[in-house]
This record gives sequence, C-alpha cells and structure tokens, in this order.
Amino acid sequence: MKRITLLGSTGSIGRQTLDIARHHRDSLAVVGLASGSSSLPELADQVLEFAPQVVSVPHEEAARDLADLLRTKGADYKGRIASGGDGLVEVATISDADTVVTGVVGFLGVRPTLEAIKLGKTIALANKETMVAAGPVIVPALKRYGSAIVPVDSEHSAIFQSLSGYAIKDVESIWLTGSGGPFRTWSREAIDNATVNDALKHPNWSMGPKITIDSATMMNKGLEIIEARWLFDIAPEKIEVLIHPQSILHSAVQFVDGSVVGQLGVPDMRLPIHYALFYPDRVPSARVPRLNLMDLGSLTFEHPDYGKFPCLRLAREVAAGQDTLPCVLNAANEVVVEAFLKGKLAFSAIAGHIERVLELHKPTKDPALDDILEADRWARQTAASLLEGALKP
Amino acid sequence: MKRITLLGSTGSIGRQTLDIARHHRDSLAVVGLASGSSSLPELADQVLEFAPQVVSVPHEEAARDLADLLRTKGADYKGRIASGGDGLVEVATISDADTVVTGVVGFLGVRPTLEAIKLGKTIALANKETMVAAGPVIVPALKRYGSAIVPVDSEHSAIFQSLSGYAIKDVESIWLTGSGGPFRTWSREAIDNATVNDALKHPNWSMGPKITIDSATMMNKGLEIIEARWLFDIAPEKIEVLIHPQSILHSAVQFVDGSVVGQLGVPDMRLPIHYALFYPDRVPSARVPRLNLMDLGSLTFEHPDYGKFPCLRLAREVAAGQDTLPCVLNAANEVVVEAFLKGKLAFSAIAGHIERVLELHKPTKDPALDDILEADRWARQTAASLLEGALKP
Repeated sequence: MKRITLLGSTGSIGRQTLDIARHHRDSLAVVGLASGSSSLPELADQVLEFAPQVVSVPHEEAARDLADLLRTKGADYKGRIASGGDGLVEVATISDADTVVTGVVGFLGVRPTLEAIKLGKTIALANKETMVAAGPVIVPALKRYGSAIVPVDSEHSAIFQSLSGYAIKDVESIWLTGSGGPFRTWSREAIDNATVNDALKHPNWSMGPKITIDSATMMNKGLEIIEARWLFDIAPEKIEVLIHPQSILHSAVQFVDGSVVGQLGVPDMRLPIHYALFYPDRVPSARVPRLNLMDLGSLTFEHPDYGKFPCLRLAREVAAGQDTLPCVLNAANEVVVEAFLKGKLAFSAIAGHIERVLELHKPTKDPALDDILEADRWARQTAASLLEGALKP
Repeated sequence: MKRITLLGSTGSIGRQTLDIARHHRDSLAVVGLASGSSSLPELADQVLEFAPQVVSVPHEEAARDLADLLRTKGADYKGRIASGGDGLVEVATISDADTVVTGVVGFLGVRPTLEAIKLGKTIALANKETMVAAGPVIVPALKRYGSAIVPVDSEHSAIFQSLSGYAIKDVESIWLTGSGGPFRTWSREAIDNATVNDALKHPNWSMGPKITIDSATMMNKGLEIIEARWLFDIAPEKIEVLIHPQSILHSAVQFVDGSVVGQLGVPDMRLPIHYALFYPDRVPSARVPRLNLMDLGSLTFEHPDYGKFPCLRLAREVAAGQDTLPCVLNAANEVVVEAFLKGKLAFSAIAGHIERVLELHKPTKDPALDDILEADRWARQTAASLLEGALKP
C-alpha cells in the first residue's frame, strides 16, 4: 500500500489524482488533502470519500466552514483540519506519507515541497514553479536528504521515462515538445487582440486557468525549459523546443549516439500522474485511454516562433543562470497572468510587463531560500506597481 | 577495448559495421571476418585494414584465391584463412571476441550463432532468420550459457532500447513499425505484375537484395513478428504492426499503464549497429546522422493490409507455435525469393508457393536442433520441387 498526500486536491491535477486513487483503492491510500480554493463542498466530499488524517484549507474561516459542512453532512470526521501556509506544510509532511503530490499552482508550492524533501519523501511534482523559482535550493536539498522527484508535467514525465536505464551524461539533447497553444496559427496582430476566452481555449489539454494562459503565451514552455534544467541537471542550451500540435510525443531524449527515445500517449494528465504515483512500478491502468497512432494518422512538428511568443524568449534568456532571475520571471508572470485573467491587461502586454520587471531586478547569485523568498516578494510588488501605473513600463 | 568478430563482412550490415569500427579504432578491434560472397578483393582490403586473427571464405578454392590476392598486394597476413561452414563457426568462436556480429543472410547463421552462445559471447544479431527458424533452440541456449542477444534489426533495437529499465511483464503490446515497402501505395493488380527492379526499390532503407524483397512482400515484417516473439518472450498476438512510411519511429512499446516509449532516428542501419556494438554503453557517434523532426515535418501511420500482403498473414499464422512451421516458412521464403530474384517466378506467386510448402509440412512440436535442420532441408527441397513443377502448387 502506497500512501500519498495531495496538495491542491480540488484543482485539475488534484481531481485526476483522486480519480486514479479511487480506482486503485487496494494499492493507494490518500492520507492528506490540501485545497487552496473556496470550493469547500467538493473538498468535503473528498474528505468523506478518502478519510485523510489531515485536511488543510486556505484560512481559519474556511476551516470552520469545512467542519460545519462535514457535520451537516452527518460525517464523523476524526482527522485534523488545518489551514494557511502552515496547514499546507502539515499536509506535505504527514509522517505516514510516502509520496507528496504537489498539485498546487505557483510559488506557494516551494515551502511544503522543501519540508517534504527534508523528510525524504518522494515528490510527485506537478508544481513547476517550485523548480523554476527555487531550483538552486531544491536540488541540493534532494541530494542532502536522499529524496527524489518524479515529475508529473507530461513533458518532464516523458523525459524521465525516456531516460529510464540511462544516465544524463549519455544525453546530447532533450526535445521538449509543446502543442504551440491556442495561438500557434494566429497572426501576431490577432494574438495582440486575443481575449481571455480565446487564451483559455487550449487545443489539446484540459488544465487549470493559469497554466492554460501560460500555454497561450508559451511562457509555460519557457518555464518547462528551466524546470527541465534543474530536474535533469542539463544545460538549457541542450534543451530544444519542438512544436507538435497533436501533443502525442510528450517529449524525447537524443542520446550521444544519435538515437532518440521518446514517450508517447494520449494528451491526458492521468497518464503522467499514474506513472508518478506508482513509480518505479508500471501498474496496469484502465483509466488511461490508449493511444492509437494508426487511427490518428499523422504527427507533425514545427520550429517554435520566438518572435511571436516573446515569453518563450524571456524564459530562455534567464534559464541558464544560477540566480534569482527565474524566480522573478515566475513571480512577475503569476501577477501579470492573474491581471490578464481579471481583464486588467491586454494579452499583448503580458511579455512586456514581465520583461520590465526582469530589467529592474538585481539578481542574486547562488541564492539561498531567503534570497528566493525576497526576490519573489520584490517581483510581485514591482509587477503590481507596473500594473497600477506607479512604475513606467 | 571491445573485440568484435563479424559474420558477413562484405554484406550491407558487415560494411556498415566496419565503417563504425574504422571510426572507433581506440575502442573496437575486429578479430574475425567471414564473407560468404565472391567479392574477394573487398574482403582482402578488409583483411589488410583490420588484420583479423581469422578470416573465412565460402570454400577452399576461395581460400587459396584470397591468399594469392593478399600476397599480390604485398601483404604479410599472419592470420588464418578458413572456409566453409566450419570456417564460419571458427570466426564466430574466436576466443578473444566479446561480441559476434551476425550479418550473414538466412538459415546459415544458426550454427555459428549457437556455437558463439555456448561460449557466452554477446550476439549482435542482424540475422533474423536464426531466431525465426531456431528460436525454440536459441532461447534456452541463451539462458543455459548466460549469453545475451542485442538485436541489430532497427525495429528490434528500438524495442530493446525502449524496454531499457523496464521488464517485459510491464508490456501490454509491442508496436512493430514498417515502412510498408515499395508497394504500399500500389494496387493489388500492379503488385502482381511487379518486376525484380520494382521490388528492389526500397523507399527508405539501403539493404541487401534478400531483405529488400522481403520488405516488398512484407514477409520481412512477418519474420520480425516471430523474431520479436522469441527475443522479448512475448506472445505474438501482443505484437501489432504499424505501417509508418517515413521509417522514423523504429518501433515502440506500450506499457500496462498506457504509456508508450519508442525509439526514433534517421533510417540508417549504423544507428542500431553502433548501439549493439557498444551496448550497454551509449558512446558518442559522429557517423550516425541526427534526426530533425522539425525539418521532416510529419510522421504518418496506417493499418497494414493483410489482404494485399499475404506473406505477412502467413507469418502471423505460424508465429505463435513452438514448432517447425516458422523454420519452414523461412526456408521456403529463402528459396522462393532467390527464384524470384533470378526471374524464375512472378512476384504474385511468392506467397502461394510458401503457403503450399507450409500446408505440406507436418510440424514437430518443441523441436531440437536436428528437427530444425531437418525441417529446413525438407522445406528447401519441397520449395524447389514446387518451383520445378515436380509438385503441384
């Protein structure tokens, strides 16, 4: 029996993780749940179904509401209800848990991930922002505490699976595939005038709103370059981006002998989640739809357009440094994307705002956790000032 | 320093093996060469270049001619010149050799392969007929003598590479890809009237004449199903054939969790040969051209047409048995293809002749080597009788 604890249980990754746990009750137990959203009825149902030791909500008021809700449903919940950042850490560090699924969005995944690493737990990492912002802190911690990360991002899971049985020294390049997002075939002018609804229409993947906007700007692919750099200990210039509109080849590895090994599958996040939950075993899954290349017909590949997608260029520019620039890129992106989702900013202005924050930043080399927390705080404040017009873009 | 000995040095696999050895002189030594062809000048050059301990030719007269030729060239060759079937075995069993590359064509690879296995050598297997005809004998011998086979067929190399780090019990199905050969888009009527030259025009791969005809009839893919069955210890009904005209995805493995891992590369035999020569290491290669999916544009996949390619159907029908039928299929195919290459038979008659030989055969269950040698002899004789009209087709 594998014990998992889940951060972000009412998000897209969280729901799909629980879908898998539901169908593998004899081999997976859910011992912790944390939700940052206000969808307490859904969380209450999860608590009733999985009876975790600890459940955590964003703040104390939500904790009281959840307790009431559980009582109203006639449930006799014996576990703890925690809240806030400490609650998130509490769920991440449940002593029973073997694997922590980090399905939360954004920088707030850093602290609970780091605390779980210190306890030697396996991290099923679906929170790429943690690696992007805190790679210089996370990677040494993994080594020190003998902990392992199994990536849940479909691309990184594909690279991880393709590397099975091989060493990173044997790798000539990593091929990071991306669908190109909803604006792949749009003109630059049309993209500039894209609405929130346009940007939320991802052609292949069903994901949360933040990552869907990141796919539209292609910042997502840029963040993935940085994530891959840390996860696989490889220079970013060895990471190539391939636009692959069908999202079937999830990524690949080219070895020094010219051979390429890649992982393929339907675009369904249950596949990499399932893999990460059961790693290192391959466990039969009836929940993951099978890929049929013959009925699909064809797979196509294109060069990425760095001109049309300046966020991808920005991420590439900061990817190689061992400093706070990736953290600032990530924080500024989180603030600007949120503003875009709220209709406060044009799609065309996203990259420019982030670039301006990067220009204003004085990076710290080889940052410690405090440097990263400070850079994150500074970047959010600076991005907010830019958005409010207090700073000139 | 790895020591290799090479059966079939003047064939397509042999030349490419030596091309790789030539560029890795510091890590690969060629200690034996065997050639079944009459191209003695080429073999003499190979002997001069690689100075093997033993070189073998088809018969004693060729041995004398080779000695003369070497003397004419002013060479002071100190190694042995052997000949015939025994010479082939001698080259395969050189005590110094770590790896035997079996690049010979057809059933004659069985005996030297088996003798090398008995010495615990690694077999870089490019002679699929050995596994097809003698799988029931080869596989137990591998276990008994602790020997290993690394496949050189591009498809089986791809499956082997994709399985790295995993176990066959984790596999749901194997996807064996094939270009579909030169007649993929031809009508059945056009195929019936195909000439030898038509059949020798393979769209992607540069290979010897026998395997090129096997690709045109798709018998090659059928033989590969049987080869894969034995190599990977998997039921043939779990082996799916995918027609993939670009020959880029060289084959793939679908695991029980729905994830697919595949190996890709340019259609160049130096890639699987290089991999097999250096296995288990990944050694940098400047000789293997790199794959560029973005410039290639698209990969397409189709269902195989068992009606248009009856040889593929015949192979499927005999694939599952642990008996002499695959041996008979292989032997009859060798005889009939040779007759076709000599213009003695229409392309459309190939499958019918093989099927008739299969119908006439009384298979032996769990055959020993003698049963296989006898079935091979019988099948060749029967196929010849059919071709001569002594037997009714």
